[in-house]
Amino acid sequence: MDESAQHPRTLQDRARIFVERPVVTNSILGIIIFNAVTLGLGTSDLVNAHVGGLLAVVDKLVLTIFVAELALKLFAYRVKFFASAWNIFDLLVVSVGLLPDRQGLSALRGLRVIRALRLLSVIPQMRKVVQALLDALPGMGAVIVMISIVFYVFGVMATLMYGATFDEWFGTLGRSLYSLFQIMTLESWSMGIVRPVMEVYPMAWSFFVPFIVITAFSVLNLFIGLLVNTMQQAVEAEAEAEFEQLRDLVRKETDVVDAHVLELHAELKALRQELAALKGGDNG
Amino acid sequence: MDESAQHPRTLQDRARIFVERPVVTNSILGIIIFNAVTLGLGTSDLVNAHVGGLLAVVDKLVLTIFVAELALKLFAYRVKFFASAWNIFDLLVVSVGLLPDRQGLSALRGLRVIRALRLLSVIPQMRKVVQALLDALPGMGAVIVMISIVFYVFGVMATLMYGATFDEWFGTLGRSLYSLFQIMTLESWSMGIVRPVMEVYPMAWSFFVPFIVITAFSVLNLFIGLLVNTMQQAVEAEAEAEFEQLRDLVRKETDVVDAHVLELHAELKALRQELAALKGGDNG
Amino acid sequence: MDESAQHPRTLQDRARIFVERPVVTNSILGIIIFNAVTLGLGTSDLVNAHVGGLLAVVDKLVLTIFVAELALKLFAYRVKFFASAWNIFDLLVVSVGLLPDRQGLSALRGLRVIRALRLLSVIPQMRKVVQALLDALPGMGAVIVMISIVFYVFGVMATLMYGATFDEWFGTLGRSLYSLFQIMTLESWSMGIVRPVMEVYPMAWSFFVPFIVITAFSVLNLFIGLLVNTMQQAVEAEAEAEFEQLRDLVRKETDVVDAHVLELHAELKALRQELAALKGGDNG
Amino acid sequence: MDESAQHPRTLQDRARIFVERPVVTNSILGIIIFNAVTLGLGTSDLVNAHVGGLLAVVDKLVLTIFVAELALKLFAYRVKFFASAWNIFDLLVVSVGLLPDRQGLSALRGLRVIRALRLLSVIPQMRKVVQALLDALPGMGAVIVMISIVFYVFGVMATLMYGATFDEWFGTLGRSLYSLFQIMTLESWSMGIVRPVMEVYPMAWSFFVPFIVITAFSVLNLFIGLLVNTMQQAVEAEAEAEFEQLRDLVRKETDVVDAHVLELHAELKALRQELAALKGGDNG
Repeated sequence: MDESAQHPRTLQDRARIFVERPVVTNSILGIIIFNAVTLGLGTSDLVNAHVGGLLAVVDKLVLTIFVAELALKLFAYRVKFFASAWNIFDLLVVSVGLLPDRQGLSALRGLRVIRALRLLSVIPQMRKVVQALLDALPGMGAVIVMISIVFYVFGVMATLMYGATFDEWFGTLGRSLYSLFQIMTLESWSMGIVRPVMEVYPMAWSFFVPFIVITAFSVLNLFIGLLVNTMQQAVEAEAEAEFEQLRDLVRKETDVVDAHVLELHAELKALRQELAALKGGDNG
Repeated sequence: MDESAQHPRTLQDRARIFVERPVVTNSILGIIIFNAVTLGLGTSDLVNAHVGGLLAVVDKLVLTIFVAELALKLFAYRVKFFASAWNIFDLLVVSVGLLPDRQGLSALRGLRVIRALRLLSVIPQMRKVVQALLDALPGMGAVIVMISIVFYVFGVMATLMYGATFDEWFGTLGRSLYSLFQIMTLESWSMGIVRPVMEVYPMAWSFFVPFIVITAFSVLNLFIGLLVNTMQQAVEAEAEAEFEQLRDLVRKETDVVDAHVLELHAELKALRQELAALKGGDNG
Repeated sequence: MDESAQHPRTLQDRARIFVERPVVTNSILGIIIFNAVTLGLGTSDLVNAHVGGLLAVVDKLVLTIFVAELALKLFAYRVKFFASAWNIFDLLVVSVGLLPDRQGLSALRGLRVIRALRLLSVIPQMRKVVQALLDALPGMGAVIVMISIVFYVFGVMATLMYGATFDEWFGTLGRSLYSLFQIMTLESWSMGIVRPVMEVYPMAWSFFVPFIVITAFSVLNLFIGLLVNTMQQAVEAEAEAEFEQLRDLVRKETDVVDAHVLELHAELKALRQELAALKGGDNG
Repeated sequence: MDESAQHPRTLQDRARIFVERPVVTNSILGIIIFNAVTLGLGTSDLVNAHVGGLLAVVDKLVLTIFVAELALKLFAYRVKFFASAWNIFDLLVVSVGLLPDRQGLSALRGLRVIRALRLLSVIPQMRKVVQALLDALPGMGAVIVMISIVFYVFGVMATLMYGATFDEWFGTLGRSLYSLFQIMTLESWSMGIVRPVMEVYPMAWSFFVPFIVITAFSVLNLFIGLLVNTMQQAVEAEAEAEFEQLRDLVRKETDVVDAHVLELHAELKALRQELAALKGGDNG
């Protein structure tokens, strides 16, 4: 920050120029990778026993750098900072590291690591891949809403019908939704869940088998829709390029004929003039 | 219903106009969503303990409104009501709520919730998604019939061959079909079913592995057929648009040449007339 | 057979005409469906207890009809009978029913049911679906051979490395191939097999995880190849139709121009003749 | 090798000509297949008991031949030998057989079998299939890196959060990555892992369900990308062929018109010359 203060423009401009300098962005990328490695090393008891203190210091240092970087960006871009979803993502995953750590909650300790996902937001190629994944979502919206409605209705039904007897799986709406998700992934759906349920409710298969068929078919259609969309965009670009080629070809070919026709026209005009001259000469 | 009675047309017309009014359809949609939420709340023991009575009253009220709405629609459209599969769907899922509830059957209590699936039939976007799913079915007909035949034959075979020893899995044709469905989804097919069976019938793998390969391959082809169909429709529309463009292009280009040729023609005709005049003048 | 004997051609011709008569093929189809139902009923202990004897008689009768039908076809078509894979299929599935049944082998009893698969060979639409499935196979040949080689090599390796300790899963080459097939379908691969193996051989994951990745990727490519082939055929037909349209369009458009050019030519010729006449008249 | 020594060129040339002779390559292929069979036979205890000694001798012999073949190739091609990835593959899988076998390590004994994978590198059709699979990899690079980052971050998080309580599954980063791979394949993810974890950490589903959704969606996109690429290449070739056809068509059609126009031109020129002659004659 001191460096940028030496430039002769407003502080905000200088901050923006500073955070956009390749050396700065590359350093941040380097620190993210370095931090990802140290976070990985932190999972080893052996490493923790020997250099655990050092790792904690490194982690605090890295967090400080990240906070400084984001504060500088916030200062440089003001509200525009929030125009980029990537910045908001960075802000969220970094701020997780600032949450108080006193209870020694292992969950929070683990969540800090999510910071390493900045690799996805900082490397341009990774951004593109993630962007492509996210771009696919809107086209899937309607089908996802449909699957959600089906999940909700089947979840409520399962809770009311099987909740009393199978509390662990269908005791609450949340448990039912989780169990239905498991069933949708086909994991232990029959041996683990439906066969035991059928021992009490012999007709349970008529609830679960249609659920599996409906969700499998919907997910399949989701996938087909996604595929056709992607393919269509590729084919469209292809078709446009082909059309350009064809247009050039047709134009070139007809232009040749047209040029000959126009030459003919000129020739005919000349002939007519000569004839007029002849006629004039004849008359004269 | 009283409102519509104040209009100056036949009762039937007035009923139709009433049920088609946006405010009415939106109110029904609102009630469906509200009912979906109250049905969800009804799964919570805590909520039931405090406002269970209220929920029951709300449910009866909502059911009354739905019945009234459908009765009005039936009165308004008469037999045409049954022309729309969506109306029949609404009728079925609402009438489930009218079934007697006396034995306290939890199954029936749960089935009532199916009414919330009206969300799919009432929201236009959801209708479209469901319609698209259903439209895909006819093209899959032949393959589904084929898979059904394979299932039936393998089901009968499994019952005859393994039913005596493995009553739980293959004791009846129904159980065999269920087990084969489980095997087709690959859930615990080997560890759960085929390995135990092979301990008694060591050659059982030669029954189940081909079954898995055949059904997997058939389902794959089902999916490929579906995908190619969807894609082809997309490509066809694309190709048609491209052809229109090309036709316009070719016409425009040849029209230019043709216009020049026709000009030439006119020029030549003029020349000929002049020549005729010249000849006439010459002769005169 | 007696019916066909009344016709005035060679016995062979009459047999062919007879087996190709719609009433005969439809009767056979009816008998196949009827037999499929009685075979299904035969799986019910209740039905067997009451009309088991009748079912056995019906089965013998149906088998006799099928044998007679195939014998007649064999007589009618001679070696040409074997030109159709469907006939060979019919012959095989029917002859299973002729195998001796004395040991009361339930396996053989079950195998007889395979005869109901004639539904696939007799209904024309089913034939088409099966044919389409079989047509896809040659294009998959090379990848299937590749997967077979990978299976064989990994099977031999697994038997040598883990066979001694895990006799049930990898004791022989056959058991290893079965276990690898199970692992390829991802059924209980980790909890059921690889984790127990890793307790003895901690590096076993480096054998099984690559196996899963390689086979999954190969199967995926198999599927993609199949899909692209199917799609390409569809697109090719589409492209050909589009080309026909374009050819007609281009021809029609250029023909119009060409017709005008030829008219011009005629006009010019006429002009030239008039001029020649003029010249002659002038000279005369 | 003695054979090639009788030819009148440099030893290196003669070695190259020798190893490229069809009879030599086919013999090597034959030996590979023969060795694959003997390695398979070596898994049978019965075969080992009777002809185990013979198999060992055969194996040593085959290994000697392979080493000689590769040594000859190395001598013939020098550094160019390493230009082909297939040669390096052959070198690696053969040299595994040269590793010392003294501890009677069954792992090493099994690894020797990997040599049979030379079938993939020696049969041209298999080479093509493998090449096609490898060609698909670069296009998948970015998504694979993304999935790796997600795996790493979730692996570190799982180790920190659940490692202490579930040592077997998440005790080290390596175990976590293996368990996450298992979860990604959906094998026993819920019944086997997440449900037990949820008994201690009730919110664990909010870690694992998003992981499943993210990886499933990424793998799906990987697959779609692969498919669209393959399809596009096929369509591109198709489109190019169609364009050639159209170009020929348009050229032929316009050439006809152009020829007529040029004839007209010639005609007109002739007319003009005649007119000039007429004029000259007129003036003369």
